[in-house]
Amino acid sequence: MSAKTLDFWFEFASSYSYLSVMRIEPLARDAGVTINWRPFLLGPVFLSLGWNDSPFNIYPPKGRYMWRDLARLAARYQLPLTMPSRFPRNGLLAARVAILGAAEPWIGEFSRAVMSANFADDQDIADPAVIHAILTRLGLPADTLLADATSDANKLALRRQTEKAGELGLFGAPSFITPDGEMFWGNDRLEDALAWVVDGPAI
Amino acid sequence: MSAKTLDFWFEFASSYSYLSVMRIEPLARDAGVTINWRPFLLGPVFLSLGWNDSPFNIYPPKGRYMWRDLARLAARYQLPLTMPSRFPRNGLLAARVAILGAAEPWIGEFSRAVMSANFADDQDIADPAVIHAILTRLGLPADTLLADATSDANKLALRRQTEKAGELGLFGAPSFITPDGEMFWGNDRLEDALAWVVDGPAI
Repeated sequence: MSAKTLDFWFEFASSYSYLSVMRIEPLARDAGVTINWRPFLLGPVFLSLGWNDSPFNIYPPKGRYMWRDLARLAARYQLPLTMPSRFPRNGLLAARVAILGAAEPWIGEFSRAVMSANFADDQDIADPAVIHAILTRLGLPADTLLADATSDANKLALRRQTEKAGELGLFGAPSFITPDGEMFWGNDRLEDALAWVVDGPAI
Repeated sequence: MSAKTLDFWFEFASSYSYLSVMRIEPLARDAGVTINWRPFLLGPVFLSLGWNDSPFNIYPPKGRYMWRDLARLAARYQLPLTMPSRFPRNGLLAARVAILGAAEPWIGEFSRAVMSANFADDQDIADPAVIHAILTRLGLPADTLLADATSDANKLALRRQTEKAGELGLFGAPSFITPDGEMFWGNDRLEDALAWVVDGPAI
Protein backbone atom coordinates (compact mmCIF):
# COMPACT_ATOMS: atom_id res chain seq x y z
CA MET A 1 0.00 0.00 0.00
CA SER A 2 1.52 3.29 -1.06
CA ALA A 3 1.29 6.35 1.17
CA LYS A 4 -1.51 8.73 0.36
CA THR A 5 -0.12 12.21 -0.24
CA LEU A 6 -1.22 15.47 -1.81
CA ASP A 7 1.01 18.31 -2.96
CA PHE A 8 -0.43 21.62 -1.76
CA TRP A 9 0.83 24.63 -3.73
CA PHE A 10 0.04 27.91 -2.06
CA GLU A 11 1.15 31.54 -1.83
CA PHE A 12 0.87 33.66 1.31
CA ALA A 13 -0.43 36.68 -0.63
CA SER A 14 -3.24 34.72 -2.26
CA SER A 15 -6.73 35.23 -0.91
CA TYR A 16 -8.11 31.81 -1.78
CA SER A 17 -4.90 30.21 -0.47
CA TYR A 18 -5.87 31.71 2.89
CA LEU A 19 -9.01 29.58 2.97
CA SER A 20 -7.19 26.38 2.05
CA VAL A 21 -4.26 26.91 4.41
CA MET A 22 -6.72 27.32 7.27
CA ARG A 23 -8.78 24.26 6.26
CA ILE A 24 -6.40 21.65 4.91
CA GLU A 25 -4.91 19.97 7.97
CA PRO A 26 -8.08 18.63 9.63
CA LEU A 27 -9.52 17.60 6.25
CA ALA A 28 -6.33 15.77 5.29
CA ARG A 29 -6.12 14.11 8.70
CA ASP A 30 -9.69 12.86 8.43
CA ALA A 31 -8.95 11.54 4.93
CA GLY A 32 -5.70 9.85 5.99
CA VAL A 33 -3.71 11.93 3.51
CA THR A 34 -0.27 13.45 4.15
CA ILE A 35 0.11 16.99 2.86
CA ASN A 36 3.29 18.05 1.07
CA TRP A 37 3.46 21.79 1.65
CA ARG A 38 4.64 23.57 -1.50
CA PRO A 39 4.95 27.32 -0.89
CA PHE A 40 5.77 29.26 -4.05
CA LEU A 41 5.57 32.77 -5.46
CA LEU A 42 2.70 33.67 -7.75
CA GLY A 43 4.42 36.82 -9.04
CA PRO A 44 6.80 35.10 -11.49
CA VAL A 45 4.04 32.72 -12.60
CA PHE A 46 1.69 35.65 -13.26
CA LEU A 47 4.46 37.51 -15.10
CA SER A 48 4.87 34.54 -17.44
CA LEU A 49 1.16 34.91 -18.25
CA GLY A 50 1.57 38.62 -18.93
CA TRP A 51 0.24 39.93 -15.60
CA ASN A 52 2.41 42.33 -13.61
CA ASP A 53 -0.08 42.40 -10.71
CA SER A 54 -2.78 40.18 -9.28
CA PRO A 55 -5.51 39.60 -11.87
CA PHE A 56 -7.90 40.71 -9.13
CA ASN A 57 -6.30 44.15 -9.37
CA ILE A 58 -5.86 44.16 -13.15
CA TYR A 59 -9.53 43.27 -13.74
CA PRO A 60 -11.58 45.29 -11.23
CA PRO A 61 -14.90 43.43 -11.72
CA LYS A 62 -13.10 40.15 -10.92
CA GLY A 63 -11.52 41.76 -7.86
CA ARG A 64 -14.78 43.17 -6.52
CA TYR A 65 -16.43 39.80 -6.93
CA MET A 66 -13.51 37.95 -5.33
CA TRP A 67 -13.68 39.94 -2.10
CA ARG A 68 -17.40 39.33 -1.78
CA ASP A 69 -17.04 35.64 -2.60
CA LEU A 70 -14.19 35.38 -0.08
CA ALA A 71 -16.35 37.00 2.60
CA ARG A 72 -19.16 34.52 1.95
CA LEU A 73 -16.78 31.56 2.09
CA ALA A 74 -15.00 32.82 5.21
CA ALA A 75 -18.39 33.09 6.92
CA ARG A 76 -19.24 29.54 5.87
CA TYR A 77 -15.95 28.20 7.22
CA GLN A 78 -16.22 30.42 10.31
CA LEU A 79 -12.88 32.07 9.53
CA PRO A 80 -12.20 35.71 10.40
CA LEU A 81 -11.60 38.00 7.43
CA THR A 82 -10.38 41.57 7.18
CA MET A 83 -9.71 42.91 3.71
CA PRO A 84 -5.96 43.61 3.74
CA SER A 85 -5.20 47.33 3.44
CA ARG A 86 -2.67 46.32 0.81
CA PHE A 87 -3.25 43.52 -1.70
CA PRO A 88 -1.41 41.50 -2.65
CA ARG A 89 1.10 41.67 0.16
CA ASN A 90 4.68 40.56 -0.46
CA GLY A 91 4.87 36.96 0.73
CA LEU A 92 8.55 36.42 -0.15
CA LEU A 93 9.99 36.19 3.36
CA ALA A 94 7.14 34.05 4.64
CA ALA A 95 7.57 31.71 1.67
CA ARG A 96 11.30 31.43 2.35
CA VAL A 97 10.60 30.41 5.94
CA ALA A 98 7.89 28.01 4.79
CA ILE A 99 10.08 26.24 2.25
CA LEU A 100 12.73 25.88 4.95
CA GLY A 101 10.16 24.31 7.26
CA ALA A 102 8.03 22.50 4.68
CA ALA A 103 8.75 19.10 6.21
CA GLU A 104 8.80 20.28 9.83
CA PRO A 105 5.95 19.65 12.25
CA TRP A 106 5.39 23.41 12.60
CA ILE A 107 4.68 24.12 8.91
CA GLY A 108 0.89 24.05 9.30
CA GLU A 109 0.80 26.23 12.38
CA PHE A 110 3.30 28.69 10.89
CA SER A 111 1.37 28.94 7.63
CA ARG A 112 -1.91 29.52 9.41
CA ALA A 113 -0.31 32.21 11.60
CA VAL A 114 1.06 34.06 8.56
CA MET A 115 -2.24 33.80 6.72
CA SER A 116 -4.12 35.05 9.77
CA ALA A 117 -1.73 37.98 10.06
CA ASN A 118 -2.41 38.91 6.43
CA PHE A 119 -6.13 38.21 6.04
CA ALA A 120 -7.54 38.46 9.58
CA ASP A 121 -5.29 40.98 11.35
CA ASP A 122 -4.20 43.13 8.38
CA GLN A 123 -0.54 42.91 9.33
CA ASP A 124 2.29 43.38 6.83
CA ILE A 125 3.72 39.90 6.38
CA ALA A 126 6.62 41.41 4.38
CA ASP A 127 7.87 42.95 7.64
CA PRO A 128 10.55 40.66 9.17
CA ALA A 129 9.35 41.73 12.63
CA VAL A 130 5.93 40.22 11.92
CA ILE A 131 7.44 36.90 10.84
CA HIS A 132 9.90 36.99 13.76
CA ALA A 133 7.03 37.46 16.20
CA ILE A 134 5.11 34.56 14.69
CA LEU A 135 8.08 32.21 14.94
CA THR A 136 8.75 33.29 18.51
CA ARG A 137 5.11 32.76 19.46
CA LEU A 138 5.40 29.20 18.11
CA GLY A 139 8.38 28.59 20.39
CA LEU A 140 10.81 28.42 17.47
CA PRO A 141 14.34 29.93 17.21
CA ALA A 142 13.31 32.95 15.17
CA ASP A 143 16.75 34.49 14.66
CA THR A 144 18.25 31.24 13.39
CA LEU A 145 15.32 30.42 11.15
CA LEU A 146 15.26 33.89 9.58
CA ALA A 147 19.00 33.69 8.92
CA ASP A 148 18.61 30.25 7.35
CA ALA A 149 15.56 31.36 5.38
CA THR A 150 17.52 34.18 3.76
CA SER A 151 20.61 32.09 3.00
CA ASP A 152 21.59 31.80 -0.65
CA ALA A 153 20.79 28.10 -0.70
CA ASN A 154 17.29 28.62 0.64
CA LYS A 155 16.59 31.57 -1.67
CA LEU A 156 17.57 29.30 -4.55
CA ALA A 157 15.29 26.53 -3.24
CA LEU A 158 12.28 28.87 -3.38
CA ARG A 159 13.27 30.12 -6.83
CA ARG A 160 13.50 26.53 -8.09
CA GLN A 161 10.17 25.61 -6.51
CA THR A 162 8.51 28.58 -8.21
CA GLU A 163 10.03 27.55 -11.55
CA LYS A 164 8.71 24.06 -10.92
CA ALA A 165 5.23 25.49 -10.42
CA GLY A 166 5.37 27.01 -13.89
CA GLU A 167 6.70 23.76 -15.38
CA LEU A 168 3.79 21.87 -13.80
CA GLY A 169 1.35 24.22 -15.53
CA LEU A 170 0.18 26.02 -12.41
CA PHE A 171 -1.41 29.40 -13.09
CA GLY A 172 -2.92 30.24 -9.72
CA ALA A 173 -3.16 29.27 -6.09
CA PRO A 174 -4.07 27.26 -4.23
CA SER A 175 -3.43 24.27 -6.47
CA PHE A 176 -3.34 20.62 -5.52
CA ILE A 177 -1.49 17.85 -7.36
CA THR A 178 -2.07 14.18 -6.65
CA PRO A 179 0.65 11.48 -6.81
CA ASP A 180 -0.71 10.42 -10.23
CA GLY A 181 -0.34 13.97 -11.54
CA GLU A 182 -3.94 15.16 -11.42
CA MET A 183 -4.15 18.91 -10.89
CA PHE A 184 -6.93 20.70 -9.03
CA TRP A 185 -7.05 24.49 -8.90
CA GLY A 186 -8.74 26.58 -6.25
CA ASN A 187 -10.00 26.29 -2.72
CA ASP A 188 -13.26 24.95 -4.20
CA ARG A 189 -11.39 21.81 -5.30
CA LEU A 190 -9.65 20.91 -2.03
CA GLU A 191 -12.19 18.24 -1.10
CA ASP A 192 -12.17 16.86 -4.67
CA ALA A 193 -8.38 16.57 -4.63
CA LEU A 194 -8.42 14.67 -1.34
CA ALA A 195 -11.15 12.36 -2.63
CA TRP A 196 -9.08 11.66 -5.75
CA VAL A 197 -6.13 10.60 -3.59
CA VAL A 198 -8.27 8.43 -1.32
CA ASP A 199 -10.64 6.86 -3.87
CA GLY A 200 -8.43 6.82 -6.96
CA PRO A 201 -9.11 8.45 -10.33
CA ALA A 202 -12.77 9.35 -10.82
CA ILE A 203 -12.41 9.26 -14.62
CA MET B 1 -44.56 36.09 0.31
CA SER B 2 -42.48 37.22 -2.65
CA ALA B 3 -41.72 34.86 -5.50
CA LYS B 4 -38.35 33.15 -5.35
CA THR B 5 -36.41 33.83 -8.52
CA LEU B 6 -32.83 33.65 -9.76
CA ASP B 7 -31.35 35.41 -12.78
CA PHE B 8 -29.23 32.97 -14.77
CA TRP B 9 -26.71 34.68 -17.06
CA PHE B 10 -25.17 32.30 -19.57
CA GLU B 11 -23.47 32.16 -22.97
CA PHE B 12 -23.80 29.27 -25.40
CA ALA B 13 -20.09 29.26 -26.21
CA SER B 14 -19.06 29.02 -22.55
CA SER B 15 -17.86 25.65 -21.32
CA TYR B 16 -18.92 26.03 -17.70
CA SER B 17 -22.26 27.48 -18.86
CA TYR B 18 -22.81 24.09 -20.51
CA LEU B 19 -22.75 22.39 -17.12
CA SER B 20 -25.16 24.86 -15.53
CA VAL B 21 -27.61 24.94 -18.43
CA MET B 22 -27.85 21.15 -18.24
CA ARG B 23 -28.27 21.15 -14.45
CA ILE B 24 -30.30 24.18 -13.48
CA GLU B 25 -33.92 23.21 -14.15
CA PRO B 26 -34.25 20.18 -11.84
CA LEU B 27 -32.24 21.92 -9.11
CA ALA B 28 -34.40 25.04 -9.34
CA ARG B 29 -37.59 23.00 -9.36
CA ASP B 30 -36.54 21.11 -6.24
CA ALA B 31 -35.67 24.41 -4.56
CA GLY B 32 -38.96 26.07 -5.59
CA VAL B 33 -37.08 28.79 -7.46
CA THR B 34 -38.12 30.27 -10.82
CA ILE B 35 -35.23 30.80 -13.22
CA ASN B 36 -35.01 33.99 -15.28
CA TRP B 37 -32.98 32.96 -18.33
CA ARG B 38 -30.55 35.72 -19.28
CA PRO B 39 -28.60 34.76 -22.43
CA PHE B 40 -25.86 37.24 -23.29
CA LEU B 41 -22.64 37.47 -25.26
CA LEU B 42 -19.33 37.13 -23.46
CA GLY B 43 -17.35 38.59 -26.37
CA PRO B 44 -18.16 42.27 -25.70
CA VAL B 45 -17.73 41.73 -21.95
CA PHE B 46 -14.32 40.14 -22.50
CA LEU B 47 -13.34 42.94 -24.88
CA SER B 48 -14.10 45.49 -22.17
CA LEU B 49 -11.61 43.60 -19.97
CA GLY B 50 -8.99 43.66 -22.73
CA TRP B 51 -9.46 40.10 -24.00
CA ASN B 52 -10.12 39.60 -27.71
CA ASP B 53 -10.59 35.84 -27.27
CA SER B 54 -11.59 33.44 -24.51
CA PRO B 55 -9.14 33.68 -21.61
CA PHE B 56 -8.90 29.89 -21.93
CA ASN B 57 -7.26 30.47 -25.32
CA ILE B 58 -5.24 33.53 -24.33
CA TYR B 59 -3.73 31.73 -21.31
CA PRO B 60 -2.91 28.15 -22.42
CA PRO B 61 -2.25 26.72 -18.93
CA LYS B 62 -5.71 27.92 -17.87
CA GLY B 63 -7.22 26.40 -20.99
CA ARG B 64 -5.55 23.01 -20.54
CA TYR B 65 -6.72 22.89 -16.96
CA MET B 66 -10.25 23.96 -17.84
CA TRP B 67 -10.79 21.11 -20.28
CA ARG B 68 -9.59 18.57 -17.75
CA ASP B 69 -11.68 20.10 -14.98
CA LEU B 70 -14.70 20.15 -17.30
CA ALA B 71 -14.21 16.46 -18.11
CA ARG B 72 -14.09 15.59 -14.40
CA LEU B 73 -17.23 17.60 -13.68
CA ALA B 74 -19.12 16.22 -16.70
CA ALA B 75 -18.32 12.71 -15.47
CA ARG B 76 -19.60 13.60 -12.01
CA TYR B 77 -22.85 15.00 -13.42
CA GLN B 78 -23.11 12.14 -15.93
CA LEU B 79 -23.16 14.57 -18.84
CA PRO B 80 -21.63 13.69 -22.21
CA LEU B 81 -18.68 15.82 -23.25
CA THR B 82 -16.77 16.12 -26.52
CA MET B 83 -14.18 18.84 -26.74
CA PRO B 84 -15.52 21.14 -29.48
CA SER B 85 -13.28 21.14 -32.56
CA ARG B 86 -13.59 24.92 -32.42
CA PHE B 87 -13.66 26.93 -29.20
CA PRO B 88 -15.29 29.20 -28.49
CA ARG B 89 -18.03 28.75 -31.05
CA ASN B 90 -20.10 31.73 -32.13
CA GLY B 91 -23.25 31.66 -30.00
CA LEU B 92 -24.81 34.81 -31.47
CA LEU B 93 -27.73 33.22 -33.33
CA ALA B 94 -28.51 30.83 -30.49
CA ALA B 95 -28.49 33.73 -28.03
CA ARG B 96 -30.85 35.71 -30.26
CA VAL B 97 -33.31 32.82 -30.29
CA ALA B 98 -32.89 32.36 -26.55
CA ILE B 99 -33.60 35.97 -25.70
CA LEU B 100 -36.70 35.78 -27.90
CA GLY B 101 -37.85 32.70 -26.00
CA ALA B 102 -36.49 33.57 -22.56
CA ALA B 103 -39.96 33.56 -20.98
CA GLU B 104 -41.35 30.72 -23.10
CA PRO B 105 -41.83 27.20 -21.74
CA TRP B 106 -39.31 25.85 -24.29
CA ILE B 107 -36.34 27.97 -23.17
CA GLY B 108 -34.83 25.22 -21.01
CA GLU B 109 -35.17 22.50 -23.59
CA PHE B 110 -33.89 24.75 -26.38
CA SER B 111 -30.88 25.85 -24.34
CA ARG B 112 -29.98 22.28 -23.42
CA ALA B 113 -30.27 21.20 -27.07
CA VAL B 114 -27.93 23.99 -28.22
CA MET B 115 -25.44 23.24 -25.47
CA SER B 116 -25.53 19.53 -26.28
CA ALA B 117 -24.94 20.32 -29.97
CA ASN B 118 -21.86 22.36 -29.02
CA PHE B 119 -20.33 20.36 -26.19
CA ALA B 120 -21.58 16.81 -26.70
CA ASP B 121 -22.05 16.47 -30.48
CA ASP B 122 -19.41 18.95 -31.72
CA GLN B 123 -21.86 20.69 -34.02
CA ASP B 124 -21.43 24.27 -35.21
CA ILE B 125 -24.11 26.20 -33.37
CA ALA B 126 -23.32 29.27 -35.51
CA ASP B 127 -24.85 27.40 -38.46
CA PRO B 128 -28.51 28.46 -38.88
CA ALA B 129 -29.30 24.93 -40.11
CA VAL B 130 -28.24 23.51 -36.74
CA ILE B 131 -30.48 25.93 -34.82
CA HIS B 132 -33.31 25.37 -37.32
CA ALA B 133 -33.08 21.61 -36.79
CA ILE B 134 -33.16 22.02 -33.02
CA LEU B 135 -36.26 24.23 -33.12
CA THR B 136 -37.99 21.81 -35.50
CA ARG B 137 -37.16 18.87 -33.28
CA LEU B 138 -38.80 20.71 -30.39
CA GLY B 139 -41.98 21.08 -32.47
CA LEU B 140 -41.52 24.85 -32.81
CA PRO B 141 -42.07 27.06 -35.89
CA ALA B 142 -38.40 27.30 -36.83
CA ASP B 143 -38.76 29.63 -39.83
CA THR B 144 -40.82 32.15 -37.91
CA LEU B 145 -38.64 32.05 -34.82
CA LEU B 146 -35.42 32.51 -36.81
CA ALA B 147 -36.96 35.46 -38.65
CA ASP B 148 -38.08 37.02 -35.38
CA ALA B 149 -34.73 36.28 -33.74
CA THR B 150 -32.88 38.21 -36.43
CA SER B 151 -35.26 41.17 -36.45
CA ASP B 152 -33.75 44.54 -35.61
CA ALA B 153 -35.75 44.75 -32.40
CA ASN B 154 -34.53 41.39 -31.17
CA LYS B 155 -30.93 42.09 -32.16
CA LEU B 156 -31.18 45.24 -30.10
CA ALA B 157 -32.64 43.33 -27.16
CA LEU B 158 -29.60 41.05 -27.06
CA ARG B 159 -27.23 43.98 -27.41
CA ARG B 160 -28.95 45.74 -24.49
CA GLN B 161 -28.88 42.58 -22.38
CA THR B 162 -25.15 42.20 -23.02
CA GLU B 163 -24.58 45.84 -22.05
CA LYS B 164 -26.60 45.18 -18.91
CA ALA B 165 -24.29 42.27 -18.06
CA GLY B 166 -21.33 44.63 -18.12
CA GLU B 167 -23.21 47.19 -16.02
CA LEU B 168 -23.97 44.51 -13.44
CA GLY B 169 -20.27 43.75 -13.14
CA LEU B 170 -20.37 40.36 -14.82
CA PHE B 171 -17.00 39.19 -16.13
CA GLY B 172 -17.72 35.57 -16.99
CA ALA B 173 -20.39 32.92 -17.34
CA PRO B 174 -22.36 31.33 -15.93
CA SER B 175 -23.29 33.96 -13.36
CA PHE B 176 -26.27 34.02 -11.05
CA ILE B 177 -27.87 37.09 -9.51
CA THR B 178 -30.41 36.90 -6.70
CA PRO B 179 -33.36 39.30 -6.27
CA ASP B 180 -31.38 41.12 -3.53
CA GLY B 181 -28.48 41.66 -5.95
CA GLU B 182 -26.06 39.00 -4.73
CA MET B 183 -23.82 37.75 -7.54
CA PHE B 184 -22.43 34.25 -7.83
CA TRP B 185 -19.99 33.35 -10.58
CA GLY B 186 -19.38 29.92 -12.01
CA ASN B 187 -21.06 26.55 -12.21
CA ASP B 188 -19.51 25.78 -8.81
CA ARG B 189 -21.78 28.39 -7.25
CA LEU B 190 -25.15 27.30 -8.71
CA GLU B 191 -26.21 25.47 -5.56
CA ASP B 192 -25.00 28.35 -3.37
CA ALA B 193 -27.03 30.85 -5.40
CA LEU B 194 -30.20 28.77 -5.08
CA ALA B 195 -29.62 28.37 -1.34
CA TRP B 196 -29.23 32.16 -0.99
CA VAL B 197 -32.61 32.69 -2.69
CA VAL B 198 -34.34 30.04 -0.58
CA ASP B 199 -32.72 30.66 2.81
CA GLY B 200 -31.99 34.37 2.56
CA PRO B 201 -28.61 36.11 2.90
CA ALA B 202 -25.98 33.92 4.55
CA ILE B 203 -23.96 36.96 5.66
